[in-house]
Amino acid sequence: MRALYWDGCALSLHTAHPAPTPRTSTIEDGGSRIVGATGGRPSIPPALVKVRLAGICSTDLQIFKGYMGFKGVPGHEFVGSVIAGAAEFVGRRVVGEINFGCGACDACRRDLSRHCPKRTVMGILDADGAFAELVSVPVNNLHFVPENVSDEEAVFTEPLAAACEILTQIQLNPGDDVLVLGDGKLGNLCAQALRLTGAKISALGKHADKLASIKQAGVRTIQLDDWQPRLFDVVVEATGSASGLELALSAVRPRGTLILKSTIAGAHRVSLAPIVINEINVIGSRCGLFPDALDALAVKQVSVTPLIEKIYSLNDGLAAISHAARPGARKILLRP
Amino acid sequence: MRALYWDGCALSLHTAHPAPTPRTSTIEDGGSRIVGATGGRPSIPPALVKVRLAGICSTDLQIFKGYMGFKGVPGHEFVGSVIAGAAEFVGRRVVGEINFGCGACDACRRDLSRHCPKRTVMGILDADGAFAELVSVPVNNLHFVPENVSDEEAVFTEPLAAACEILTQIQLNPGDDVLVLGDGKLGNLCAQALRLTGAKISALGKHADKLASIKQAGVRTIQLDDWQPRLFDVVVEATGSASGLELALSAVRPRGTLILKSTIAGAHRVSLAPIVINEINVIGSRCGLFPDALDALAVKQVSVTPLIEKIYSLNDGLAAISHAARPGARKILLRP
Repeated sequence: MRALYWDGCALSLHTAHPAPTPRTSTIEDGGSRIVGATGGRPSIPPALVKVRLAGICSTDLQIFKGYMGFKGVPGHEFVGSVIAGAAEFVGRRVVGEINFGCGACDACRRDLSRHCPKRTVMGILDADGAFAELVSVPVNNLHFVPENVSDEEAVFTEPLAAACEILTQIQLNPGDDVLVLGDGKLGNLCAQALRLTGAKISALGKHADKLASIKQAGVRTIQLDDWQPRLFDVVVEATGSASGLELALSAVRPRGTLILKSTIAGAHRVSLAPIVINEINVIGSRCGLFPDALDALAVKQVSVTPLIEKIYSLNDGLAAISHAARPGARKILLRP
Repeated sequence: MRALYWDGCALSLHTAHPAPTPRTSTIEDGGSRIVGATGGRPSIPPALVKVRLAGICSTDLQIFKGYMGFKGVPGHEFVGSVIAGAAEFVGRRVVGEINFGCGACDACRRDLSRHCPKRTVMGILDADGAFAELVSVPVNNLHFVPENVSDEEAVFTEPLAAACEILTQIQLNPGDDVLVLGDGKLGNLCAQALRLTGAKISALGKHADKLASIKQAGVRTIQLDDWQPRLFDVVVEATGSASGLELALSAVRPRGTLILKSTIAGAHRVSLAPIVINEINVIGSRCGLFPDALDALAVKQVSVTPLIEKIYSLNDGLAAISHAARPGARKILLRP
């Protein structure tokens, strides 16, 4: 099959890449939680998914700079159709959670397989991803896509779930004053997800066109040039760059909360004294669960398709990656 | 009067330093909260306190490296006797909270004057401190020292309150697995304060003698050479150095809590990706309220005098500061 392949140094298009092989195998345990192969129960094979659309994410671009030391087929944002595996999935349109837990540990039993210490992660850690014609996904990671959610919307489920994750970590109340820092794809989705709480959301960014798109979704926006420093109850750092942290820290009120969304590879210089002096609560926030995101897409509470910049064929995958890496690029999609 | 004076470049002993002058003036508002001079109410003069003992803290040493750009008389840990001011205080032995709030803002009204945006801070920010014969302190910052608490114990009230501050920020339960990183004065006091919750406290440090002192206080200890990496529910970073952060981050379980206690001047290189990947909750923690600390001292729940290394006369203040700056030095006190 065709697939993009990252060998640790260079990305290339393989036209005869081996089809994906089963990895984590899990089984439903009579309606209660999932038990993995390591739990000593019989296992079922993962589903084989034909990728319909895949999204290129900043984390992919970080991987091409060495993040996680990943080698293999990248890609963790996708929507596809199941072509083999458990009968009730075959023929269905699905999206898939990207953390493949062992199914047996404490984290997995608490619905936190995204923190399973033995997890593999699609396209990021020891598991091939979705920049390919086919991808193998444990059936317990799959979610059906509602009929009224298009492929172009469904491919945003993973990043939208990551935005919704914030709402599982902190309690936002109407009247809370919240700043989302960054007008890129992540900042846009975070602003839209947080807006659902009724809190006062402002988005701060550099790009007039991107801020306009956020404003259309009902969020007030501030251009960086017009920024008048003031303090917020909650600041979400979603710039995707190390430099955003200092501004973020300066905008959190004493004893306020800073949500860190950007995953930046490697070390960078930062003064952490403001965290201590102002007793700021810094909360790291990564992947989220898919049902909230799919619900928000199904009832059209969030608007994601304006984020799409261009859809490339998988054959033009290298050009697509180059395009995604341009400063200010919106979402680039791959269609196998 | 005699006082140590930091001019921004060098520390010297002034033998004819001007006596302290009133700064923040506050008045009790009929049993409710404090209203400052800026609140439009009549003001009362601060108390003039004759210093009995003062403690040298790592923050003082940071100030001599440029932290906060402070100039003036340093020193914020003290016990003294009131010699002038409100009648009910004169002649009484006191300790004093170090943040001098405006008394009128939202933070001050919520008993958070330590986060007042207009605050001055004794010996740290725009207010002379306690490395002197006399210090001026707003009466609302003063607390009487119980009779059964010695001067040598009472001088630890400020750092012990900073340790107790953690307990106002997070809920620790018996059975929680907690690591205190650092076997210095701050680590010692944090370990002792957290032990009062019934949680399982371990202290990790480099120095066998200091760990022995923590062990005597009833905390299990781990020598760094014997460290077997494992994960804790809560980690308290109290090494006082930038290098402790990386180890601290590696020892927090996913979705666990990291308390940052060390205030390090300037920027340093650090990878923050683990915070995001493991969704760690990082909480900055600074000054605390004094009553909890005084109570713990009065009922002998914590043992602080073993932390004293030497008491110097104020006349030998420069030698005292040099001694305090030696790696591994325990608490150095100044007696004016």
